[in-house]
Amino acid sequence: MRLDLVIRNGTVVTASDEFEADVGVAEGRIVAVARDLAKGDQEIDATGLLVMPGGVDAHCHVEEPEYMGARLADDFVAATRGAACGGTTTIMPFANQLPGKSLREVVEDYHGRAQGKALIDYAFHLILSQVSAPLIGQELPALIADGYRSFKVFMTYPGYMLEDAQILEVMDAARRGGALTMVHAENGHCVHWLGQRLEARGETGLGAFAESAPPAVEREATHRAIALAEITGAKVMIVHVSSGQALEQIRWGQDRGIPVLAETCPQYLLGLGPHLHEPGWEAAKHVCSPPPRGSDDAAELWRGLQQGAFQLVSSDHCPYRFAGTDGKRSQGGERPHFRKVPPGLPGLETRLPLLYHEGVAQGRLTRQQFVAVTATNPARVYGLYPRKGSLMPGADADIALWSQGERRILRHADLHDDCDYTPYEGRELSAWPVVTFSRGEKVWDRGWVSNAAGRGRHVGNRSPS
Amino acid sequence: MRLDLVIRNGTVVTASDEFEADVGVAEGRIVAVARDLAKGDQEIDATGLLVMPGGVDAHCHVEEPEYMGARLADDFVAATRGAACGGTTTIMPFANQLPGKSLREVVEDYHGRAQGKALIDYAFHLILSQVSAPLIGQELPALIADGYRSFKVFMTYPGYMLEDAQILEVMDAARRGGALTMVHAENGHCVHWLGQRLEARGETGLGAFAESAPPAVEREATHRAIALAEITGAKVMIVHVSSGQALEQIRWGQDRGIPVLAETCPQYLLGLGPHLHEPGWEAAKHVCSPPPRGSDDAAELWRGLQQGAFQLVSSDHCPYRFAGTDGKRSQGGERPHFRKVPPGLPGLETRLPLLYHEGVAQGRLTRQQFVAVTATNPARVYGLYPRKGSLMPGADADIALWSQGERRILRHADLHDDCDYTPYEGRELSAWPVVTFSRGEKVWDRGWVSNAAGRGRHVGNRSPS
Amino acid sequence: MRLDLVIRNGTVVTASDEFEADVGVAEGRIVAVARDLAKGDQEIDATGLLVMPGGVDAHCHVEEPEYMGARLADDFVAATRGAACGGTTTIMPFANQLPGKSLREVVEDYHGRAQGKALIDYAFHLILSQVSAPLIGQELPALIADGYRSFKVFMTYPGYMLEDAQILEVMDAARRGGALTMVHAENGHCVHWLGQRLEARGETGLGAFAESAPPAVEREATHRAIALAEITGAKVMIVHVSSGQALEQIRWGQDRGIPVLAETCPQYLLGLGPHLHEPGWEAAKHVCSPPPRGSDDAAELWRGLQQGAFQLVSSDHCPYRFAGTDGKRSQGGERPHFRKVPPGLPGLETRLPLLYHEGVAQGRLTRQQFVAVTATNPARVYGLYPRKGSLMPGADADIALWSQGERRILRHADLHDDCDYTPYEGRELSAWPVVTFSRGEKVWDRGWVSNAAGRGRHVGNRSPS
Amino acid sequence: MRLDLVIRNGTVVTASDEFEADVGVAEGRIVAVARDLAKGDQEIDATGLLVMPGGVDAHCHVEEPEYMGARLADDFVAATRGAACGGTTTIMPFANQLPGKSLREVVEDYHGRAQGKALIDYAFHLILSQVSAPLIGQELPALIADGYRSFKVFMTYPGYMLEDAQILEVMDAARRGGALTMVHAENGHCVHWLGQRLEARGETGLGAFAESAPPAVEREATHRAIALAEITGAKVMIVHVSSGQALEQIRWGQDRGIPVLAETCPQYLLGLGPHLHEPGWEAAKHVCSPPPRGSDDAAELWRGLQQGAFQLVSSDHCPYRFAGTDGKRSQGGERPHFRKVPPGLPGLETRLPLLYHEGVAQGRLTRQQFVAVTATNPARVYGLYPRKGSLMPGADADIALWSQGERRILRHADLHDDCDYTPYEGRELSAWPVVTFSRGEKVWDRGWVSNAAGRGRHVGNRSPS
Repeated sequence: MRLDLVIRNGTVVTASDEFEADVGVAEGRIVAVARDLAKGDQEIDATGLLVMPGGVDAHCHVEEPEYMGARLADDFVAATRGAACGGTTTIMPFANQLPGKSLREVVEDYHGRAQGKALIDYAFHLILSQVSAPLIGQELPALIADGYRSFKVFMTYPGYMLEDAQILEVMDAARRGGALTMVHAENGHCVHWLGQRLEARGETGLGAFAESAPPAVEREATHRAIALAEITGAKVMIVHVSSGQALEQIRWGQDRGIPVLAETCPQYLLGLGPHLHEPGWEAAKHVCSPPPRGSDDAAELWRGLQQGAFQLVSSDHCPYRFAGTDGKRSQGGERPHFRKVPPGLPGLETRLPLLYHEGVAQGRLTRQQFVAVTATNPARVYGLYPRKGSLMPGADADIALWSQGERRILRHADLHDDCDYTPYEGRELSAWPVVTFSRGEKVWDRGWVSNAAGRGRHVGNRSPS
Repeated sequence: MRLDLVIRNGTVVTASDEFEADVGVAEGRIVAVARDLAKGDQEIDATGLLVMPGGVDAHCHVEEPEYMGARLADDFVAATRGAACGGTTTIMPFANQLPGKSLREVVEDYHGRAQGKALIDYAFHLILSQVSAPLIGQELPALIADGYRSFKVFMTYPGYMLEDAQILEVMDAARRGGALTMVHAENGHCVHWLGQRLEARGETGLGAFAESAPPAVEREATHRAIALAEITGAKVMIVHVSSGQALEQIRWGQDRGIPVLAETCPQYLLGLGPHLHEPGWEAAKHVCSPPPRGSDDAAELWRGLQQGAFQLVSSDHCPYRFAGTDGKRSQGGERPHFRKVPPGLPGLETRLPLLYHEGVAQGRLTRQQFVAVTATNPARVYGLYPRKGSLMPGADADIALWSQGERRILRHADLHDDCDYTPYEGRELSAWPVVTFSRGEKVWDRGWVSNAAGRGRHVGNRSPS
Repeated sequence: MRLDLVIRNGTVVTASDEFEADVGVAEGRIVAVARDLAKGDQEIDATGLLVMPGGVDAHCHVEEPEYMGARLADDFVAATRGAACGGTTTIMPFANQLPGKSLREVVEDYHGRAQGKALIDYAFHLILSQVSAPLIGQELPALIADGYRSFKVFMTYPGYMLEDAQILEVMDAARRGGALTMVHAENGHCVHWLGQRLEARGETGLGAFAESAPPAVEREATHRAIALAEITGAKVMIVHVSSGQALEQIRWGQDRGIPVLAETCPQYLLGLGPHLHEPGWEAAKHVCSPPPRGSDDAAELWRGLQQGAFQLVSSDHCPYRFAGTDGKRSQGGERPHFRKVPPGLPGLETRLPLLYHEGVAQGRLTRQQFVAVTATNPARVYGLYPRKGSLMPGADADIALWSQGERRILRHADLHDDCDYTPYEGRELSAWPVVTFSRGEKVWDRGWVSNAAGRGRHVGNRSPS
Repeated sequence: MRLDLVIRNGTVVTASDEFEADVGVAEGRIVAVARDLAKGDQEIDATGLLVMPGGVDAHCHVEEPEYMGARLADDFVAATRGAACGGTTTIMPFANQLPGKSLREVVEDYHGRAQGKALIDYAFHLILSQVSAPLIGQELPALIADGYRSFKVFMTYPGYMLEDAQILEVMDAARRGGALTMVHAENGHCVHWLGQRLEARGETGLGAFAESAPPAVEREATHRAIALAEITGAKVMIVHVSSGQALEQIRWGQDRGIPVLAETCPQYLLGLGPHLHEPGWEAAKHVCSPPPRGSDDAAELWRGLQQGAFQLVSSDHCPYRFAGTDGKRSQGGERPHFRKVPPGLPGLETRLPLLYHEGVAQGRLTRQQFVAVTATNPARVYGLYPRKGSLMPGADADIALWSQGERRILRHADLHDDCDYTPYEGRELSAWPVVTFSRGEKVWDRGWVSNAAGRGRHVGNRSPS
């Protein structure tokens, strides 16, 4: 068979195996994993490199509507460019339901935003903020039939927070259609109430941000989401888990056979919490929801990841700029105010190298676990497998080559998003994706990045293929 | 000292001790617990009898407004008469907030209903069904200042169910005033949703009643109530706990030092659940909320009671008649329908002998634990101690003399309420209160019951005394 | 009735109640608890004082054989004198089985040691270090029949450590006879192994003492003791619990209905652990087994005490002197060595005031809980109730009057044992027993202590009474 | 590249992936996994078949010394033949230390038994029954250096049971050498004691077998083994877990980051417990240690397997014959006696099809999980990966082809061991290995089995390769 591309002599890493082999690609798909493959039209020498499935980032926000006066820095061009440079080959942003639009219109709108801009492939989750009988009865089933099978609901945030009755309806509709309900599990009533109390006491600095949403708030909502899953019989994904207390509930549910999946993110595994107490505006760079916690919670999250309580590590990329009129600094007046700084951090490009360094290089994860939680599992959970998340014959040739020898310092100046900072500035890394392929095409190679915006495709039933 | 009454030669039982002694009473109060007391004006020979504090029933419904078309059978005359005959000397019914009335008006209204009718003493909890800023800011503090220190909130029932934000406000106001928040912990969204599903499937019989409110629904609300207590720092009482799953959450909170108290009731300790599957209308006699469960849950509740996870056993007396135009049978048409039969059971008069038989006589509880959970603890928890719940000098002479030798069959025909059935018909009992004193006055004596309706007084700051 | 003694106008505190009353005593027993008692032969004005049951210290070592080259400082004279001055009126030391003697001989021997020396009453537990078929088959049943109903077994210590097979035999014999098995729960194999490793690494200072017996060692043995109790159906008492990990196991067992009781001690509630790292020999003053832990464990123990997971607080009085040829300092050469300093602390006299200050005065315990865990519960658990641990008519007039106004500094110079230090030197106290009565006789009164050594009697079937 | 063998058009299943591909083999190793491979010398049409890694059975007993008067039916010829026919390509039997022999001699002895007989590859675990200082100090390190890296210790069985002190030494030596300690976790003291009690009551039938070793006995030993692992810092494998109670402890340890691995077996997942109550000798066919439990425990074990609390499913193949002079029936006289029937079941050949049917076909496990727990994980855990347990280039061509269409009834008559029964007689299966390759050689093909006894090799440092 004629091979368009052979990646030769690398160490191939999958979610279960690791071995020396060549990887052969034809027509954008992997067709061979073998010793001594015949010469391909293009040859890549991967000697000394790791050959891993390109990452699937199952939680990111791109080109969403303005929130709290701030606008996300990344459009689909920037987001997919940064992703590709960070070894990620598929992103799953949210199509965010806006008042007054049907879900179908929202989906079409997001397709319009992505088409012509995306460098790598993508699929959409739908955010459900308005739940009505027609939505449950007609809109959702129709979208499920068209291949949209993951819906996010919020237990917090004004304008997004649903009542339990509504979440039950969504979960039940998801169950009937074989779809998955993602839950942002924080009790919005409590966050609001605690925030008011803090404000009333004049504690408005960013140090108060974590106090306004302590682990008990996340734990409660997590327990509730699990109970709703148990009652409806629906599968549920608790997203961006930040605390050991929430993890305890997740394990409780899993140990009893309730179908609970869970995700955490680098910002929680790295224990960024203490940065919320940095002076002046610096702390704003670490404001996200749920709030980052400290090292004890981080240690528990690592254990949950090691044992499989978490199936996914995603970025929750939500790139508000620090400066500028639409940035974090511009919200809330002279001084930072914990209820006015929009919560969210950029992270698409840094997710994989940070997790590799803190996880694999520190001996907390095997490389197999790393591939599983960053690529294979998200692809499986959201129905993109086996096209995505795999290096096996038949899969899209979405591949990242990693150099392990390097020690380098993470600098925002070296990143490729449209944000103006990274919360991880100055951290040391011990491995980095040096080359990324999307469906067999090189989109990133040691500093060079493709400008083929628009080559990315939607993955799903809708996609023309 | 001159003694109005001496109860001689009984076995005195308190929440910690048990001993042979005489009890001396003067001016309605206990003044001496001693061997060989001097002769009193009145002498009672208690040889062979247990001398215990009269019961304090901290959870009962009397003369509340119509609900679901049904009306409670007992007014204050009947309720306090039944209580006295069952060895209870203080009841704590609810003053139930109705739309359009201020809490103060509600309280005054209930005082009006009780005065001139009650045979024994009473105090009120307040049910909060309408929470507003003025209620939190002015009404509650004023009522707390007047000695009303227990407020019940509902996490279920249309017209009563509060949002978490409102419960937080109530708990916080209670904490500030040193009051206690009682919580009916079932997730009303879930109960409603499950009920609709069952109805849609045509499962409308009373067997479906338990399915519409399974333990997961109670467990979730219990966890949530505990989280709200943790967040506000307020003490909380989870009332009428029915399931091992809810108990597990209560223990979880208590083990972590969260101030969680808990109550269960005879209907749950006796595992009445299977009766919901009795044919025809019989099952309606066992419909209460939360639904009674089976023997496994009952076994766990007994363990929780033995170890102190539960502090109280109350009746949750809620005496809807079985027959008649305002009874359970008249609601919902020809056949019983699980959403139309009003939930609630009579239990004031049977609480103590049932608990004694199933608890003490079966070796599950010591007599000290029996006194603690039925009299001393409720008096303490709700601020009535040391006037109530104690046999020590200074306490009101509220005393029950129990015969232990008797074996008898519980028959509604022998009871004294205005209801028309007991869910415990035909059960065997091994002990029974034969004489009851309220503030030194005999109100019940082996079949004779006082007709001095109106002698009962409110216990609290308001009480003239 | 003629009263030998009236304690007038005090605040009487029992394990369940608290009230203003006089206490009347005749022939060494309490006969009346009443308002306005008639004048007694002796009158004590207890205005402003607390009137509490004298303490029952259920765990102390007196006149035991030499161990590790050290000898206990207190004989029965000193031990009971110190106890009386600290508000304790009954002690329960161990009759410690020695090789080559029958249990019966051991018991007789201890009776001989106590008679003629004890100032207050006493009862014995038996330590079983040699378990044989005749001991199980004949000796134990005969001793049980004679009223010796508590046996202690060790899961550690050379010469004492029993195998599980032997503990099963003891527990089973105890169960058959209605006796209670007390367990020192540390895994001796692990303690020995860890000690050897520390020694091999040259870590022989007293800081290594805690490392040689970490909480995992106590937790394991606790879980095992509970399993043995479950398998035999015997009731078990885990003594001197030091860690949250052991407590977690105890709760696990109690929650499942396994009959597990538990005891902790002031040295664990006060978190003396950090003192093991004091320089030079000072640390030796805090060496006891299990090792004291830090403040996190202490906080968990307090919670266990508040909720009733622990029924007892005892002293584990084990008074090795600090100096002198038979003291802690004389064992092990020039420098302190963690395997050579004999483990044990004096604590009989300080148990109650320390627990009152840290427990009641700091708001962690009610006065009722204090009386329960220090007097009423130990009397009940070990069969001394209702003669001991109660202030009710019929009980022995073992009474302590406490002053609450005082603030004072605990100094060994003010104590009455024969030891030469207290590990609590310099601690502040907020209450103290000012007068102690034993069977109606004053044995301690504000600095004066009775020298009537020998007036104390054995409590139990053997006692002549 | 020239291919000796191409397995064409099958569905390749790995521990993480599943895809259509050909598998190419050269010189006994897999060299290619690809679409449209060039023709090989030998071609196998796997259309419609699953292509899975041959199983690795990490727990089996072969040619061990006589125990309780019974002899294992299978020598290495029969055991490896049965394994191959059941889709297993590597077995890990035990080299069982006998009194009076050095470990080295034992190992050599077992090599001698396997050589010339084994049809497939094998590696040895060592059973340590005699622990001495020379064994810990010299023998074990030397054997570890030679590649023997898994040692099994027993907490029960006369002649095998070690004391905790000895287990600590073994674990510590294993930790130092990077080896793994396998633990048979039942408390032998308790099993013995319970057995004696049952015997004394005349309960000697096989129904008493489970009562002599209830879950509490396994739970206790499991907790203890985990504590010993925590104390030494060694990794531990709890083998053949039978009960939910033991699983609870395993989760407890894993959740806290203690390095605990665990294995279960088909006899526990299938809940064979009720068969112990079959009349007459039939029950003997289900006697194994720990005893099989019922369906509740089985349900918990499945959950543990789904979530990853268990890493392995092994057979614990221990093939005592039912009949014959050395069979189960011949031990213990006329009637079956629970202490005389040797415990152990045959299971090498049935492990994989039973687990596939009950796990994958019933929707409890994915095919990826099936491959992981039966092949990839055991190979990794015991250091055989990547030669064994993988289908990736470089791995030994140990491959099983499975037919999924079949429904068939399991009959001992169709099996290939030397035992005379299977405890699973009559069970329905839905998939079965139809062809097995060992290092590229066909050893089983739809009824035909290779007679090349002796072609199997030891896998490890010793192996000549």
